[in-house]
Amino acid sequence: MSDAPAPPLTAIPPDIKALADYERRAQAHMPPAAWTYLQEGTGDGVTLAANRAAFDRIGLVPRVLRDLRGATTHIELLGRTHAAPLLLAPVAYQRIAHPEGELATVRAATAMGIGMTVSTLASVTLEEIAAARQAAATELGTAPAPLWFQLYMQPGREASLALVRRAEAAGYEALMLTVDASIKRSGFTLPPGVEAANLRAARPTQTAQPLGRILFGTPLLDAAPRWEDLAWLRAQTRLPLLVKGIMAPDDALRALDHGADALVLSNHGGRVLDGMPAPIALLPAVAQAVAGRAPLLLDSGIRRGADIARALALGAAAVLVGRPQVHALAVAGMAGVAHALLILRTELELTMAQLGCPTVADLAPDRLLTAPTPVEGEPFRHSPRA
Amino acid sequence: MSDAPAPPLTAIPPDIKALADYERRAQAHMPPAAWTYLQEGTGDGVTLAANRAAFDRIGLVPRVLRDLRGATTHIELLGRTHAAPLLLAPVAYQRIAHPEGELATVRAATAMGIGMTVSTLASVTLEEIAAARQAAATELGTAPAPLWFQLYMQPGREASLALVRRAEAAGYEALMLTVDASIKRSGFTLPPGVEAANLRAARPTQTAQPLGRILFGTPLLDAAPRWEDLAWLRAQTRLPLLVKGIMAPDDALRALDHGADALVLSNHGGRVLDGMPAPIALLPAVAQAVAGRAPLLLDSGIRRGADIARALALGAAAVLVGRPQVHALAVAGMAGVAHALLILRTELELTMAQLGCPTVADLAPDRLLTAPTPVEGEPFRHSPRA
Amino acid sequence: MSDAPAPPLTAIPPDIKALADYERRAQAHMPPAAWTYLQEGTGDGVTLAANRAAFDRIGLVPRVLRDLRGATTHIELLGRTHAAPLLLAPVAYQRIAHPEGELATVRAATAMGIGMTVSTLASVTLEEIAAARQAAATELGTAPAPLWFQLYMQPGREASLALVRRAEAAGYEALMLTVDASIKRSGFTLPPGVEAANLRAARPTQTAQPLGRILFGTPLLDAAPRWEDLAWLRAQTRLPLLVKGIMAPDDALRALDHGADALVLSNHGGRVLDGMPAPIALLPAVAQAVAGRAPLLLDSGIRRGADIARALALGAAAVLVGRPQVHALAVAGMAGVAHALLILRTELELTMAQLGCPTVADLAPDRLLTAPTPVEGEPFRHSPRA
Amino acid sequence: MSDAPAPPLTAIPPDIKALADYERRAQAHMPPAAWTYLQEGTGDGVTLAANRAAFDRIGLVPRVLRDLRGATTHIELLGRTHAAPLLLAPVAYQRIAHPEGELATVRAATAMGIGMTVSTLASVTLEEIAAARQAAATELGTAPAPLWFQLYMQPGREASLALVRRAEAAGYEALMLTVDASIKRSGFTLPPGVEAANLRAARPTQTAQPLGRILFGTPLLDAAPRWEDLAWLRAQTRLPLLVKGIMAPDDALRALDHGADALVLSNHGGRVLDGMPAPIALLPAVAQAVAGRAPLLLDSGIRRGADIARALALGAAAVLVGRPQVHALAVAGMAGVAHALLILRTELELTMAQLGCPTVADLAPDRLLTAPTPVEGEPFRHSPRA
Repeated sequence: MSDAPAPPLTAIPPDIKALADYERRAQAHMPPAAWTYLQEGTGDGVTLAANRAAFDRIGLVPRVLRDLRGATTHIELLGRTHAAPLLLAPVAYQRIAHPEGELATVRAATAMGIGMTVSTLASVTLEEIAAARQAAATELGTAPAPLWFQLYMQPGREASLALVRRAEAAGYEALMLTVDASIKRSGFTLPPGVEAANLRAARPTQTAQPLGRILFGTPLLDAAPRWEDLAWLRAQTRLPLLVKGIMAPDDALRALDHGADALVLSNHGGRVLDGMPAPIALLPAVAQAVAGRAPLLLDSGIRRGADIARALALGAAAVLVGRPQVHALAVAGMAGVAHALLILRTELELTMAQLGCPTVADLAPDRLLTAPTPVEGEPFRHSPRA
Repeated sequence: MSDAPAPPLTAIPPDIKALADYERRAQAHMPPAAWTYLQEGTGDGVTLAANRAAFDRIGLVPRVLRDLRGATTHIELLGRTHAAPLLLAPVAYQRIAHPEGELATVRAATAMGIGMTVSTLASVTLEEIAAARQAAATELGTAPAPLWFQLYMQPGREASLALVRRAEAAGYEALMLTVDASIKRSGFTLPPGVEAANLRAARPTQTAQPLGRILFGTPLLDAAPRWEDLAWLRAQTRLPLLVKGIMAPDDALRALDHGADALVLSNHGGRVLDGMPAPIALLPAVAQAVAGRAPLLLDSGIRRGADIARALALGAAAVLVGRPQVHALAVAGMAGVAHALLILRTELELTMAQLGCPTVADLAPDRLLTAPTPVEGEPFRHSPRA
Repeated sequence: MSDAPAPPLTAIPPDIKALADYERRAQAHMPPAAWTYLQEGTGDGVTLAANRAAFDRIGLVPRVLRDLRGATTHIELLGRTHAAPLLLAPVAYQRIAHPEGELATVRAATAMGIGMTVSTLASVTLEEIAAARQAAATELGTAPAPLWFQLYMQPGREASLALVRRAEAAGYEALMLTVDASIKRSGFTLPPGVEAANLRAARPTQTAQPLGRILFGTPLLDAAPRWEDLAWLRAQTRLPLLVKGIMAPDDALRALDHGADALVLSNHGGRVLDGMPAPIALLPAVAQAVAGRAPLLLDSGIRRGADIARALALGAAAVLVGRPQVHALAVAGMAGVAHALLILRTELELTMAQLGCPTVADLAPDRLLTAPTPVEGEPFRHSPRA
Repeated sequence: MSDAPAPPLTAIPPDIKALADYERRAQAHMPPAAWTYLQEGTGDGVTLAANRAAFDRIGLVPRVLRDLRGATTHIELLGRTHAAPLLLAPVAYQRIAHPEGELATVRAATAMGIGMTVSTLASVTLEEIAAARQAAATELGTAPAPLWFQLYMQPGREASLALVRRAEAAGYEALMLTVDASIKRSGFTLPPGVEAANLRAARPTQTAQPLGRILFGTPLLDAAPRWEDLAWLRAQTRLPLLVKGIMAPDDALRALDHGADALVLSNHGGRVLDGMPAPIALLPAVAQAVAGRAPLLLDSGIRRGADIARALALGAAAVLVGRPQVHALAVAGMAGVAHALLILRTELELTMAQLGCPTVADLAPDRLLTAPTPVEGEPFRHSPRA
């Protein structure tokens, strides 16, 4: 049996009705090593499993007979309208899943009016992606969908700034600084022909730590970004600035104090530190701390429109999906990604209809019935014998 | 191997001792597509599983040596006596399970003195079902069992009113307006010869949403019933009016304020919105809000007489069973349904005897030991470092 | 392959180190129908599983370096000394497991100094069992171990009284009235040669309800014992009187008010009503209500010496084991039962040693770390939107 | 197929990236009986499973963009610096896993700068181990890593004292008195050529209780160490004294009052009493009681660097690993053990980096999100009917 993956399909199979159907089919369309790299969680996969389980523990309590005429999923976020509280999360090296890579993805996003976040580690240059968005919008006769650029801080500030300037010049509408994966282990080798296209002139920037090598005391830690780098970045650009990878309430406030316009709660899909809780488990505490000062986004574990509703009911302004876009891209390219986005949006609409919520602002905690959950810092009680 | 399902049995096999035994056997007696349509839950089946698990978490605490002479399962509900706190829930298209369809079911209900709720989407006309009830009662020399009509609001009020008038004329004793499934996804094609018999003159009325199609902004939402439609319906008929699909305490009060005489807590057997909690999980909160103003019924997950006792101990006046009637119908027709109802009633009696409850009014929370459960709107607590 | 069970072993296999090892081996030594009858729980087996799981959730917190010289498992109970806080629970028809039946069991109990409770439904007469105890004690040169008689109330008081008088005359030291199984379903047919030996002159007394037959309104309920029967029985005998099958605190107090000298918390090994909690889950509440007025015993789920320690730490004076005695009896007759009792006692001693408890009185809640558990009557909380 | 285990590997396979990979491979390198002896938990393995599950329930909450320059895992403990908050737990008879036994282990510990605790039941004499440490340090040009001696109290105080004096003379830096396993069951026979080398002149000292034999009332209990023996031992030596096997807060205080300099929370890897909670479940209560009077160490269940971080965040000063050192030793001898220690340390560093903790002192409860957990002595609540 050959290891060569099956080519992308040219039509969407009728049995694909949910994102899980794309996930089930995607493996056949990707090289085994790339599939493993995409799917695996770090460590023992505890966080990867928690990301899904956390959503399933949150019950949805319907409201009936509400007036749903004029219902809409639209939101206002960072100065413009989004068709739904949903964006594509930054995912690196999309050409490992499909020959067109990020170009197919941005066309799908444009067709669906859903925002896309382009990774620093995209396998197509950010300029080409921006051009593809414009071309698709023109062809479809629609407005271009939101396009954001995800930034990994580069070893030198000049290199980081160069990326920012390129994103500004190409018409990107926001910057998303990822802060959670600056130090991690990596064991994946890119297949031939796939590279970090934005960094052709530079060294790859994610400071991957070889497996089983001492970290502390090495120069790696000197290169890791710090709060002062966030403040510096804030001063360099007028683009809205999101910080991705925040999980703790105190970090959330600190990020806002350093100039962030919005935050993305994320455990990087369980890829960085096994044992991290699902972001949805920390969202209420972060929302309480932030108290409306800035919008909160969330990724890691979103697989259903109902998950979007849950996140919004607990305080998120929008969510992002990561792996699912790659599953759909591998299976059916641009059409697959567009279809996956349509499924999520339709599921969200059906959920909102059942919850009696004509707008996302109606999604509130009274629509939820949640399981008792962990308490930070109070792990065990002990009652000595009276 | 042929796909043709086995014909219904003419005698009840001796190994059938519980409703689960009917469920296990029923698949062989139904076309595969019909079986899937009957059994599946929406989404990932989280709600479907929760419906059963919620009951298993509620412990039953017995009371011994009580005087059980004269014990009875009878209840008074909506103006008449029921032999047990149990009714048949509305289930559409019963001829997909058995050639006699609803006619077999109503004969079984009559034989057992158990009420039946006829679906708007019955595969036999409501008039034929009413006539079959009368014929069976005459043949058996018993009083006719309660007969209710379940109503899906039709696109035009005239069409809805026509159904109400037909139900009134045919001797139906109550109307049950279903409000939870007016907007949902549907992918099942009726087999030849099975149709919505009550609606032959009209278009099918359940506004099924094709898979993967945008809902918001389409005319579908304009047709969905609203609170004002409930008030209108209330004004059209003197029949007792139940509203089915209520889950939230505020909706319960609102339904009563709009004229409902009783409420049915239901998540439609996990068929409408995956992620909904089991109705039994919300029953105490609804009962507390309603505070005795109206009887509460409950379906979704009832498979044992002990489940009936649990629901009543938490505030329900009666329960309904949906899928189990179809399982028994497919296996052994009228005899199967009657036997399934007998099993439930006998199990309820044994449970009441062990709990020391000679009447259903004795079923109270002190008979339960329940697991800690979810809290609406308080999903997570966070204690920052002191 | 023949259905004939393997004969009992004449030596204990060296791989038997725990009661679970007897259980694993016992099936081969029993007729299939008898094995099923012995092992099965009622309903879906939820209670059967809960009986074990409840113990596994109770953590044991050791104490080190305590002075264990003179440590002992002895207890005083109902006027005499027991070698350990452990008795054999009443188990009917033991000749279905071994040709010697209860005679082998009582010899094992005598050899180990462990009390035995003889069932009304024993397959050997109570007089023969008492004589076998005396003969074994004489042969072994030990004192006879405690011998109790379990009573099912007979349809007429004269029949009940006759059994009491026979037990008194044969030297039984206590009566245990079982109150939890007077009305239940039964589907087991005794094999040839096995009968309720004590009731040869009478009809079997357990009012078994045929499967799937209406109970309420039948004479069965008239025959069921009531609180007044307990008071009557109390007045008939000077033997200590235990009531078995109590689970609720209010029933416990009522039983004491009607003359019980001790109570046995039991769900009959999950054989009577599926959905009942494990007795250990209710023990603390019952102990709190009883407040030392009378000793509490407990059965259902005891499989380890550590379980005995857990029950005592939560307020039990002693425990009983049911099915395990039959497993050991089937595998190796008298030697098997004696060995099983030795295992339990040795495990208890090792547990007490690790917990730093030289006497059973030292077993207290401070030796436990328990999981959050159910609350009676407070199943769900609901916080409406503020 | 021969039962002979595979010889140790001479190079570390590239697929070994975690301690679990060593565990998976180790079975092939050990005799079956030795493997079973190493791996099994006592009883039903409830505690063995709890040791891992308890860690997985403790979520890790990251902090981002912290200044990690100069980060270090170093700690000060009992008067000297350790390279990481990690030591090798005492493990008996290491020559059953590898021909070099403890000599390979101490060389690995020295190479990694990680402390080793030598068991009383080592299969190489404590003097040989100390000499091997010195030789390895000289060869590698490093300082000798910490070397501690684990003591089982011997039947006579002279025998215990002789071991202490030998440890002092050989340069051991601390004594760790194990108090949790003085009375337990044992069924393992040492393979030929493996013995308790330190006790050649004496009888084996762990007072193993033969299976299924009565314990109470035998001389075994007289020989078990008591609090007064701890006080005596304290008076005999100036070495720092750790007491291992403490789980309860009151025992912790009592051990300090009797002269212990540090405590090791341990359930002996689930080998002593099934049903004991994981030490991590009791750590917060013990830490609260001890209130900084002495350092707390912990073993049982540590398999990941993240587990070390969890333990430290809840109050531990350091942790020990037991079985994992044997897995690595069996697979690849000295190189395996060194690699396993490197993995743990690297994982700890990555965890600290993600948690934003440049020093172990920064690991605090605010880095955790923990599940609701057991309460000692408050197992069940009961609310009688109002």
